[in-house]
Amino acid sequence: MEVINRLLNYKDLKIVQNTEWFNFSLDSVLLCNFVTINKNTKKIIDFCTGNAPIPLILSQKTSANIVGVELQEDVYNLAEKSVDINNLNDQIQLLNMNVKNLTEKFETDTFDLITCNPPYFKMSSKSNLNENKIKTVARHEVEINLDDIFQISKKILKNNGSIALVHRPDRLIEIIEKMRKNNIEPKRIQFVYPKYKSESNILLIEGTKNGKPGLKILPPMYVHDDDGKYLKEIEEMFQ
Amino acid sequence: MEVINRLLNYKDLKIVQNTEWFNFSLDSVLLCNFVTINKNTKKIIDFCTGNAPIPLILSQKTSANIVGVELQEDVYNLAEKSVDINNLNDQIQLLNMNVKNLTEKFETDTFDLITCNPPYFKMSSKSNLNENKIKTVARHEVEINLDDIFQISKKILKNNGSIALVHRPDRLIEIIEKMRKNNIEPKRIQFVYPKYKSESNILLIEGTKNGKPGLKILPPMYVHDDDGKYLKEIEEMFQ
Repeated sequence: MEVINRLLNYKDLKIVQNTEWFNFSLDSVLLCNFVTINKNTKKIIDFCTGNAPIPLILSQKTSANIVGVELQEDVYNLAEKSVDINNLNDQIQLLNMNVKNLTEKFETDTFDLITCNPPYFKMSSKSNLNENKIKTVARHEVEINLDDIFQISKKILKNNGSIALVHRPDRLIEIIEKMRKNNIEPKRIQFVYPKYKSESNILLIEGTKNGKPGLKILPPMYVHDDDGKYLKEIEEMFQ
Repeated sequence: MEVINRLLNYKDLKIVQNTEWFNFSLDSVLLCNFVTINKNTKKIIDFCTGNAPIPLILSQKTSANIVGVELQEDVYNLAEKSVDINNLNDQIQLLNMNVKNLTEKFETDTFDLITCNPPYFKMSSKSNLNENKIKTVARHEVEINLDDIFQISKKILKNNGSIALVHRPDRLIEIIEKMRKNNIEPKRIQFVYPKYKSESNILLIEGTKNGKPGLKILPPMYVHDDDGKYLKEIEEMFQ
């Protein structure tokens, strides 16, 4: 079922979702909160944009031009509807294509910032792919993997441009190695914990193309308190 | 000045220190708290042992045989005194040598566990080395660096043996890369924060020789509360 939901409390920002696929998630909100945007950030591209929660939220934080890239046509169509109903067509441009092919579309050294909430799960013979195709492609590295993401990033990012990713902490090592293989230096990491005294389940990481070594581990962030309620700093992101 | 201090509250454990050099630090206590020791841990070696706080503390947690290695003779002599006054000569053996030369002393595949609180600072032309020699060698990578540590570790660790390090978070990337270059897979990381809402200033990391990929980020640990007092979980380590 296709529904229109309010997206956070930003000036009545709305998002079009299909309840059989997936709703915009905390991950996207956390990434928008984490990413470094400043007055020099003029061109942003969001890989694997889904129904475009990240471009929509970022449009409320910056006047930069934002491109969202979504491979799956049905999902891309939802994203288009969301941009339309929010009258954001001047700021947000959507592309229905595979991120892997972006160099056909853009020159090298084009973007100041890449954001990405990619498929989290590796493909393996054990992968449970019995769910619907749209969910599978969004969750598993069927159409794109970390190598593809950083290889393309290296090309289309400006010198000293950044990429910010949300991912799972158990893939931290691989992410770091693949960033550095592509001359992207990890600069900021924040771990998110579902509650106190739990292991981290969400990784936020930002790297800079041709950046100097020097990593900061930001203060940890918790999602729920001991009663299962959202903590204040999480609630504030939704407002 | 040489003094004898109580080392935590373990059964009147004592440590001999020289106040002009350095005192055993929170870092060593945190590492002993973090490291995985179980009934299969029979042989432990502590690199860069200083005045042996780590062997002394671990002796209260395990009956494993513990070797401590210290290059600087004056510091090694302090460590010997500490082991003597605690009557731990049966469990703790001290060696006055450079860790780099350990393969002359031990066969490959000898140890179940390596612990290490190494010099934290890279040598560079800007390094401030005007302080005394003993402090300089303990703090800067004059006599040993991360490459040396993991190269030796790879050799003297048993298959599936582990190394646990305390270090600075800004060197995380390098530590991970050098571990993996030596077939040591990072498995557990814990970040320590000086207080709430601060960046992390202490990294604890454990890796396993020929371990399978799969990393856990443990719950964060804070040292001080907003009033500057030690937090309960830190105080408990000292008891």
